[in-house]
Amino acid sequence: MAELQRLPSLKRVAVSGGTHGNEMSGVYLAKHWLRDPSELQRGTFQATPFLGNPRAVEQCVRYIGRDLNRAFLNEFLTSKDSDIDHYEVQRAQEINQSFGPRDSSQAYDFMFDLHNTTANMGACLFVATEHCLLPMHMCHYIQKHYSMGPCTIFLYQQPGEETLYLTSVAKAGIALELGPQPQGVARADCLAQMRSIMACALDFIELFNKGTLFPAFETEAYKVVERVDFPRYPDGEISAVIHPNLQDKDFQPLKPGDPIFQTLSGDVILYEGDNITYPAFINEAAYYEKKVAFVKMEKRTFAQPALQKEL
Amino acid sequence: MAELQRLPSLKRVAVSGGTHGNEMSGVYLAKHWLRDPSELQRGTFQATPFLGNPRAVEQCVRYIGRDLNRAFLNEFLTSKDSDIDHYEVQRAQEINQSFGPRDSSQAYDFMFDLHNTTANMGACLFVATEHCLLPMHMCHYIQKHYSMGPCTIFLYQQPGEETLYLTSVAKAGIALELGPQPQGVARADCLAQMRSIMACALDFIELFNKGTLFPAFETEAYKVVERVDFPRYPDGEISAVIHPNLQDKDFQPLKPGDPIFQTLSGDVILYEGDNITYPAFINEAAYYEKKVAFVKMEKRTFAQPALQKEL
Repeated sequence: MAELQRLPSLKRVAVSGGTHGNEMSGVYLAKHWLRDPSELQRGTFQATPFLGNPRAVEQCVRYIGRDLNRAFLNEFLTSKDSDIDHYEVQRAQEINQSFGPRDSSQAYDFMFDLHNTTANMGACLFVATEHCLLPMHMCHYIQKHYSMGPCTIFLYQQPGEETLYLTSVAKAGIALELGPQPQGVARADCLAQMRSIMACALDFIELFNKGTLFPAFETEAYKVVERVDFPRYPDGEISAVIHPNLQDKDFQPLKPGDPIFQTLSGDVILYEGDNITYPAFINEAAYYEKKVAFVKMEKRTFAQPALQKEL
Repeated sequence: MAELQRLPSLKRVAVSGGTHGNEMSGVYLAKHWLRDPSELQRGTFQATPFLGNPRAVEQCVRYIGRDLNRAFLNEFLTSKDSDIDHYEVQRAQEINQSFGPRDSSQAYDFMFDLHNTTANMGACLFVATEHCLLPMHMCHYIQKHYSMGPCTIFLYQQPGEETLYLTSVAKAGIALELGPQPQGVARADCLAQMRSIMACALDFIELFNKGTLFPAFETEAYKVVERVDFPRYPDGEISAVIHPNLQDKDFQPLKPGDPIFQTLSGDVILYEGDNITYPAFINEAAYYEKKVAFVKMEKRTFAQPALQKEL
């Protein structure tokens, strides 16, 4: 185990709701915080709320032209082309200007991004990789202090994959996923859960800024392995739905031979992998168009060194 | 109680899925039946499946320009204007040509319309009023033979209200609502439930056509009283969400003084009516834009005379 790691304090913190305009917990919280930001205040900093995709929020859709949370590509952020093809590319540039620029010293210290899923994933904390020390410590702190249910760590960045996500404009960040919640619906229970996680996360930053030593720890986390599409007819139409035994079983072990799909003619399709996998984003509404019925994850344990603010 | 009523047999029967393009149980069933209609066949008739709003289905949205299931106004159906402002007005005219014309002798005998809701309404059968004798008998038959849960009768037509709905093009019809299911998600359990209700409904028509006598009965049904909007800020923005005690409690008694909304500042708003009411469509995603947080219903018992096919 490496020795104590030190990182600079976090002064400039931002939180986006409505990066996807129909994921309502974040939309409602961001709108509320824009009216009354007192909840985002701590002694050493105050987080800045904003609406990620205001036009999509207005229309209550995921996006207008393309998915904003896939638009933070270098190619888009650095494009000088005034004739940008989609609203979201322009919006990604604006967010990068306001809270980045990405990989620059002026970039914000930390970015939160608030999402909902229709999948039964509970509270889920999205970190790029296990090497993101400060976010991993934040997740661990939230897991210990969040009292409304379990909180899963989801490591999303695959080797060689390009950086696409909103949180990447800041020096560090996490995205919160909360589900199940239908698109376009704000449930009081989901709102309370997201609010509670955000309070824990801001408390963590406050303690970190005040010099608290966070000891080394080990934690379980799930890492993306592979995305699995729905079965399809030769013409491309989906021919089967998620099997009832798999529906709502996010992060539960899926064994070779377990049913995963059911065709409309009644046939059952079995999982043919060689190993146990842990599915996530099972039947997420927004992923039909991305050809993802669920995501295969592996469960691993990661050791993290102790963390404290720079002297 | 009136004596036995007689009605002509039902030879021409149609079923629409995807009247709202993101309500997936009906979308998947209609697409399946278009590939393989064998399930819709009985001895005395065969139901004709179709996609209500194919463009909305393609884009997985409720509608393109305006709500198709509010577009069956006389004014729209009879408009000769070639310059129709919305796709759905044109589509309503096409459906009226194919399965109507409404109120004409050529109109189809019966129309089913398949919907989903994000509200926890279970299986719900929508009939215009308690005076629709054949649909009321069908509902009663489904209630007795559908084995996957209770099935509620929802009487939607208010006095003096204009006819707006797709089923109105045929001589009689019912709409099925099934929930909760998120928009854009096809759940195997909802699909199985809708399929089972449709099978019961077709069995009823078959028995009716064969001359079965359906005895007089009494049944409970819920009748629309009033639509209730969300609380709002002076600028029109929603200021509160459905209270957790009300969420998912469709068709359960709501008493004066019970909490109905919770503001983002934590204030609770109570139900101020004089009487017990039965809420439905609690937190339906598609009704935010219609300014409906839930619909107040009254529960009543209706007596229906016996029914048999014309001699």
